[in-house]
Amino acid sequence: MKKIIETIPNFSVARERDEETFNGLVDISKSRDDVILLDAQSDPDHNRSVFTLIGSPEGVEEVAFQLTKFASEHIDMNHHHGEHSRMGATDVLPFVPTLNTTTEECVEMSKRVAKRIWEELKIPSFLYEESATKPERKNLATVRKGQWEGMPEKLKQEDWAPDFGEREMHPTAGIMAIGARKCLVAFNVNLKTSDVEIAKKIASEIRESNGGFKEVKAMGFSLDDRGITQVSMNLCDYNVSGMHIVFDKISELAQKYGTEVLESELVGTAPAKAFLDVCEHYLKLKDFDAFKQMMEYRLL
Amino acid sequence: MKKIIETIPNFSVARERDEETFNGLVDISKSRDDVILLDAQSDPDHNRSVFTLIGSPEGVEEVAFQLTKFASEHIDMNHHHGEHSRMGATDVLPFVPTLNTTTEECVEMSKRVAKRIWEELKIPSFLYEESATKPERKNLATVRKGQWEGMPEKLKQEDWAPDFGEREMHPTAGIMAIGARKCLVAFNVNLKTSDVEIAKKIASEIRESNGGFKEVKAMGFSLDDRGITQVSMNLCDYNVSGMHIVFDKISELAQKYGTEVLESELVGTAPAKAFLDVCEHYLKLKDFDAFKQMMEYRLL
Repeated sequence: MKKIIETIPNFSVARERDEETFNGLVDISKSRDDVILLDAQSDPDHNRSVFTLIGSPEGVEEVAFQLTKFASEHIDMNHHHGEHSRMGATDVLPFVPTLNTTTEECVEMSKRVAKRIWEELKIPSFLYEESATKPERKNLATVRKGQWEGMPEKLKQEDWAPDFGEREMHPTAGIMAIGARKCLVAFNVNLKTSDVEIAKKIASEIRESNGGFKEVKAMGFSLDDRGITQVSMNLCDYNVSGMHIVFDKISELAQKYGTEVLESELVGTAPAKAFLDVCEHYLKLKDFDAFKQMMEYRLL
Repeated sequence: MKKIIETIPNFSVARERDEETFNGLVDISKSRDDVILLDAQSDPDHNRSVFTLIGSPEGVEEVAFQLTKFASEHIDMNHHHGEHSRMGATDVLPFVPTLNTTTEECVEMSKRVAKRIWEELKIPSFLYEESATKPERKNLATVRKGQWEGMPEKLKQEDWAPDFGEREMHPTAGIMAIGARKCLVAFNVNLKTSDVEIAKKIASEIRESNGGFKEVKAMGFSLDDRGITQVSMNLCDYNVSGMHIVFDKISELAQKYGTEVLESELVGTAPAKAFLDVCEHYLKLKDFDAFKQMMEYRLL
């Protein structure tokens, strides 16, 4: 079976504001046969783009570097404005084990790429999430706090030397967060009620930060145009808390609060294994070997 | 996305009785990069082997012919004995649309292969299932009735001229059934009861032949060593009657008859789409585009 790694680089550029740079990044994303650009989203208000690529470890590692190089040559952070917090031309560069690869392999990759980016491009970086060298560097928000404007000061603090590079920003490309993280599944469950308090209450009960399911982030929203509400989630490790786990719990809680689940939606993509776990659960599949029994795995 | 076709040739040979021929068939099955041998099962009592291969249309078509050629050169039906009904060295040759291919493409392929087998090997054939040229040739059992010993007489009957070739058997390789069929999922549901009558009753209620679900064959069995019973099924078209459809109905009927479902099991492989349909059902997924949202499809 092939080894597949995902990378989701965030760039401080929007297609609507600088189409040439955006298109240049797209071209690099498509420059190798062993790397596939799944998605390239641009937000003009944030002045930011989020690319999703999957491919062979070698391909993803090389393309991640080339994208960072191109961004550093075409984005000047001194002239960057946008609503989203940011600190570099390539702001965040995560690596995700997707098929037949481990978190450890992605941690190693993140370190190799960070080292090369420092050596060849002179852009410093912090290692975050699974690659973090200190507990306080795991969380991206903590790492990025102070962002572009405050980062020169932050770098002088004893605890905030970059993991690669010196205590100084690249003059135009800034500084980056690079790291391995688990596969994230964006999964929403819609409720047959317009009472947003119910959605918020359910969200608060299932998210990890309130003692709910591990690796689950959840918020309750109103979908005003449809007169319904939504529990919007990030499942940050589907091996720990899969779609079926949260779906069943939300169904149970919805009933408790006098409503019921209308439907669910998956935002973007998820790996086959996330779906196969769902089947295994609902069909009570015994002795199921996903990697042997799903035919398409045999083609990879 | 790649085009993938499955073929499941049945050969009148068992590894336990003629290892050299069996191994030769395995070698041919592995002779191309674009064809994968998923499984090679041998039954010495039936003196029969069932191979499962998937691959590109070109690859599968070529390998299917080469396997038939090799079998015709190494298996002499005049000396074949076994419990399973049979009429040729390669007895049955089905083609199944698996990924990004249609039944129509497999029908065309079956006809091209049957023509080539007649022209180059002088083995006649009947087209069966989706490729059948007459309603009475759809069913394999009907086509094969009379088998090796009775076939010379059958071929003289007005209605039983081969679809390719003359009304005469190949002297050692006999005659074949070649055709396109739908993807078959072998799926069993086990019940928490030792009363085999309940499993038989449920099987009779869900199978198509008794007015149950379309494209479902089902039998009730006792699994004596475990003290439980099984509804054993062939889902002959998972697009029409998927695993979730029969699982839910069996759960309902089990309850009605005072027992419940213990577990289920999938025998062999199934294509990703058969699993994704299950997820879509249980999670009530809205606007789900399996081919865009399951990441691995993007790699094929």
